[in-house]
Amino acid sequence: MIAELVRKIQEKNAPVVVGLDPNLSFIPEQILREASRAKAEGIFTDDDLHTAGEAVWRFNKEIIDAVADLIPAVKPQIAMYEQFGTPGMIAYWRTVRYAHEKGLIVIGDVKRGDIGSTSEAYARAHIGRTAVAGHNIRVYDADFATVNPYLGTDGIKPFIDVCNENDRGIFVLVKTSNPSSGEFQDVLTKDGRPMYELVGEKVAEWGRLSMDGQYSNVGAVVGATYPEQAKRLRELMPDTFILAPGYGAQGATAQDLAGFFKADGTGAIVNSSRGIIAAYRKERYSKYGAEGFADAARAATIDMIEDLRSIF
Amino acid sequence: MIAELVRKIQEKNAPVVVGLDPNLSFIPEQILREASRAKAEGIFTDDDLHTAGEAVWRFNKEIIDAVADLIPAVKPQIAMYEQFGTPGMIAYWRTVRYAHEKGLIVIGDVKRGDIGSTSEAYARAHIGRTAVAGHNIRVYDADFATVNPYLGTDGIKPFIDVCNENDRGIFVLVKTSNPSSGEFQDVLTKDGRPMYELVGEKVAEWGRLSMDGQYSNVGAVVGATYPEQAKRLRELMPDTFILAPGYGAQGATAQDLAGFFKADGTGAIVNSSRGIIAAYRKERYSKYGAEGFADAARAATIDMIEDLRSIF
Repeated sequence: MIAELVRKIQEKNAPVVVGLDPNLSFIPEQILREASRAKAEGIFTDDDLHTAGEAVWRFNKEIIDAVADLIPAVKPQIAMYEQFGTPGMIAYWRTVRYAHEKGLIVIGDVKRGDIGSTSEAYARAHIGRTAVAGHNIRVYDADFATVNPYLGTDGIKPFIDVCNENDRGIFVLVKTSNPSSGEFQDVLTKDGRPMYELVGEKVAEWGRLSMDGQYSNVGAVVGATYPEQAKRLRELMPDTFILAPGYGAQGATAQDLAGFFKADGTGAIVNSSRGIIAAYRKERYSKYGAEGFADAARAATIDMIEDLRSIF
Repeated sequence: MIAELVRKIQEKNAPVVVGLDPNLSFIPEQILREASRAKAEGIFTDDDLHTAGEAVWRFNKEIIDAVADLIPAVKPQIAMYEQFGTPGMIAYWRTVRYAHEKGLIVIGDVKRGDIGSTSEAYARAHIGRTAVAGHNIRVYDADFATVNPYLGTDGIKPFIDVCNENDRGIFVLVKTSNPSSGEFQDVLTKDGRPMYELVGEKVAEWGRLSMDGQYSNVGAVVGATYPEQAKRLRELMPDTFILAPGYGAQGATAQDLAGFFKADGTGAIVNSSRGIIAAYRKERYSKYGAEGFADAARAATIDMIEDLRSIF
């Protein structure tokens, strides 16, 4: 699946993924109003949760329609759906399906990870197939999932097996974009090297179990906010594709991102969430207004792509 | 909430939590048959997933009915529900609600953890309230959630805030029960101490933000399979309650668990999942047969409680 992502990035000439993390506060009034008028269906769908799930889905659909021709991939952050119970999970499922219809690759930002059989269940749910009564069912059907490495190989290997069976991929958290990521990830080990380097080396080792063209289906998450660490990780993980969150709202710039890529211009994809989906609330795109939130997202995506092209 | 857990453990004289991790292969034929006859309701409920969710719920209900008077708490492992899509999440929700009706505390084994606003969404979904249209809705409504520490304080603090607002608790992964947990957790830092000690110290520090009686609402997960590490962690985290998975099927014995408790006999709760819910498939309980799976679970729970009482 990583070869497919690389191909789509080249086709669009845009190493950009739009994060579909629709905090309710980002969703304009008119969408919330329409969503609350849509009749609640199904069981256990509290009216408010139903409205929230419906609003999230309608918001995402307009964003996807506005940016699908520009970018290779979207990254829904599942917490933003999970918080609305089953209506939220239905909105997640619809979003994945619609993004696929529009030819986009979907990175499910689920950050799962557990011991063996439990990780296998997560992997089957998110990027594989769950076996029930002799049938193999694609449940959430993302192309990639993000995975937490804290439990070690036991927690990662079931994901890799599912990747190999289904031509899918994962991105393992190595150095995350948040301010406190250093508390454990930067701790120096007894040979003087930071923890994230050990995790990065392990990701490179796991990656050899699932090569797909130039890169492995086992990728790494490295925050765009940590450019120095990324340069070192780029060397330690030559065959590892990097998912870099933290551009825009979290403060990273195009220049920070140069070291994430290889000399041939491949090797990373940069995520922006709020900076795109809530662009209409920024001064720069305010002319679009809340009614034009999707057009604002398109304009912000074009600007981000131009900015990243300035690296090369 | 930790004070309530301590109280219930003392009331039942049983530091035991039953893990409700119903792999479909544990569920007897008769339950699957009845579940597949139950009419599918709702939207996006694939027939097979509906059957699976319904079977999981019916299985759990019988287990809960059989053991509720013996134990203080249950721990559903959410991956086993998530793998069945929305019908699985409905089964999880029903299980939490029914356990509460039976007076049990529920530890949602969700192992979530992300950056700030995302961790907040997870915390609200699992142990707090999601705000929608001016209403605050309890979504999954567990009493405790398990949390992954890899992202540092940013990822944990939102959970603690939600604990304080809702009188709930978390258990942070410190030293997990699986064979490869040492890959990163045991790495020696430059001052010669293993990583899990640093995480343990941080858990003790976070714990001071949410004291509730003798212990903090911020607990720790320490695998029953690592008794030596637990002794050290017990010293480093005097006010931290420990959730210890790994007894039984994963190989830990009562003697391994002595060091998890404090001198007064409090301080830990021990989980068994497969060893209880799939007891009917073990030679020792085979007389109950698949029809008597709940009676077998009861017998195995009584044996586990007796075994743990031998520590003191």
